[in-house]
Amino acid sequence: MATSKRFSKGSLSDLGEFGLIRRWAHKLPLLESGVGIGDDAAVLPGPGRKKILFTTDMLIERHHFRKEWGHFSWLGQKALLVNISDISAMGGIPKYAVISLGLSDCPVRLMDQLYVGFNQVARRTGLRIVGGDTNAAPCLIINVAIVGEVAGNPLLRSGARVGDWIYVTGTLGSAALGLKKLQSGKKITNDPLIRRHFLPPIRTDVALQLKKRRVHAMIDVSDGLLADLSHILQASRVGAELWPENLPRLRGSGFSPEVMRKAQLTGGEDYELLFTHPGLLPTRIAGVPITRIGRCHPPQFGLKLKGKCDTQVSFQDYLGFNHFKA
Amino acid sequence: MATSKRFSKGSLSDLGEFGLIRRWAHKLPLLESGVGIGDDAAVLPGPGRKKILFTTDMLIERHHFRKEWGHFSWLGQKALLVNISDISAMGGIPKYAVISLGLSDCPVRLMDQLYVGFNQVARRTGLRIVGGDTNAAPCLIINVAIVGEVAGNPLLRSGARVGDWIYVTGTLGSAALGLKKLQSGKKITNDPLIRRHFLPPIRTDVALQLKKRRVHAMIDVSDGLLADLSHILQASRVGAELWPENLPRLRGSGFSPEVMRKAQLTGGEDYELLFTHPGLLPTRIAGVPITRIGRCHPPQFGLKLKGKCDTQVSFQDYLGFNHFKA
Repeated sequence: MATSKRFSKGSLSDLGEFGLIRRWAHKLPLLESGVGIGDDAAVLPGPGRKKILFTTDMLIERHHFRKEWGHFSWLGQKALLVNISDISAMGGIPKYAVISLGLSDCPVRLMDQLYVGFNQVARRTGLRIVGGDTNAAPCLIINVAIVGEVAGNPLLRSGARVGDWIYVTGTLGSAALGLKKLQSGKKITNDPLIRRHFLPPIRTDVALQLKKRRVHAMIDVSDGLLADLSHILQASRVGAELWPENLPRLRGSGFSPEVMRKAQLTGGEDYELLFTHPGLLPTRIAGVPITRIGRCHPPQFGLKLKGKCDTQVSFQDYLGFNHFKA
Repeated sequence: MATSKRFSKGSLSDLGEFGLIRRWAHKLPLLESGVGIGDDAAVLPGPGRKKILFTTDMLIERHHFRKEWGHFSWLGQKALLVNISDISAMGGIPKYAVISLGLSDCPVRLMDQLYVGFNQVARRTGLRIVGGDTNAAPCLIINVAIVGEVAGNPLLRSGARVGDWIYVTGTLGSAALGLKKLQSGKKITNDPLIRRHFLPPIRTDVALQLKKRRVHAMIDVSDGLLADLSHILQASRVGAELWPENLPRLRGSGFSPEVMRKAQLTGGEDYELLFTHPGLLPTRIAGVPITRIGRCHPPQFGLKLKGKCDTQVSFQDYLGFNHFKA
């Protein structure tokens, strides 16, 4: 789930996205039956010791992207990559995808670019696109559902324990800064931040390595570091201290230090892995940088930012995304 | 796939929906790897002799429905039922669903009705809703993806043989007439046609019985009888004669005989089963009426309508839906 425009004041906007999910999960018992509600992918029984993972994500024009930004092949890639990220974050391997399209009239050339993007990701990851649904629509809509598989137990948000270290892969904030550049009307070139906004990393291999190293809890950073860390803390019933000064540096972005720090803590759509582990891990696994950024505490600790010399930092201003909440 | 507004002249509209699918399937080799492209659901390897079925369908406001028609619980049911129909048409059992929502701001009460509809279907069918994605959107969008399973080989469109009889379950045309009533501004009451437009039948049980009786080819009637029969004929490389006079009667609809006959032959969204079988079947299986409506011939026969006394009838006027083709 990614940055979306907020609703105008009134009804759904009062509830917020997570409020709506909680409301339904509470009122409608069937929704509680899957591991899916509240984790990156649902976990279904599979053959032998394997389990099947099942996830879906929708990209909607004007809310997740704008047609005038162009680069439909990147957009096609992104639609698959955000779903692959959900499977990776559970320690699984993406296997099959179905794609529903809502298409507003536009040159067939652009639609072809979209599909070139789908296929680039399919080739890189071994994912097979096996079906779909195509409809006319008032705007471009891309919905992907992916079936993956995981050997043994998947990595959940709920596994963090007091004393675990908190780690993150790669860098955080680039995608949000890329979005800022796009929104400011900057033409898409090979700007690395814009590229990063469209092209989330594939973290399947490092996730498999982390699973072997017995990571306790894992999630992908889609809503922003603070929001997604909160998901782990809530599901695991632990508290945590977070060290913003340890976050991997964003280089040469052309933004002020404040904007960059805010992007690191609350920027969505980085699709890096956020996880907890009881031990000290190497700084690079499967070629991907790993950074230790905090530690888990008992639940009453809450979530605190710690600066240098163990000083506490306010983080009231740094809340993650909520699609509907005003 | 269901009735959608057509695109304005220009680009995608020149190609048509099926043209677009063919173009992609031709240009992009990965799309050919699944049984999915061209069948109701993709067929994936499963545990033991079982196979996994995977399908997706999207409903979009203003194209598949209008908010002012109300009855969000019916809409929620429909979003699942059209996907269940795809699984049933392959001889499978629906097991798990993920639901992506694009929500424009509206009373939470209506959203609750939508979810009540999801759960009604889940309870009736044993389907488990295990996850989803919720986004703000310029209009209401409901995308469902379902994983099902089938014992042994699924029923495909490509199995029809020369000499097979052609059968259909239930009645055809009601959903299209219901849509006509809705479009004419008629308030939703318990009108059986309007009800039928929103609530496709669940044909899982009769499909399982038909699979046991070794049906050769099967498809659900989503695009209209002529269009979907053509899909079977193309995939199976056979021709056919169709007996419109044998089609199950539509009663008390208040429409002219011409309108009703056209709805029977070309009306979409009935989600009945259309299948071929070499033998004579009973007129009711698993409580569902079965009607013999034609016979398969060699491919050079094409598709012909036969009236009483074996007279040939023109069917040029009776083409099925094509979402994009002008």
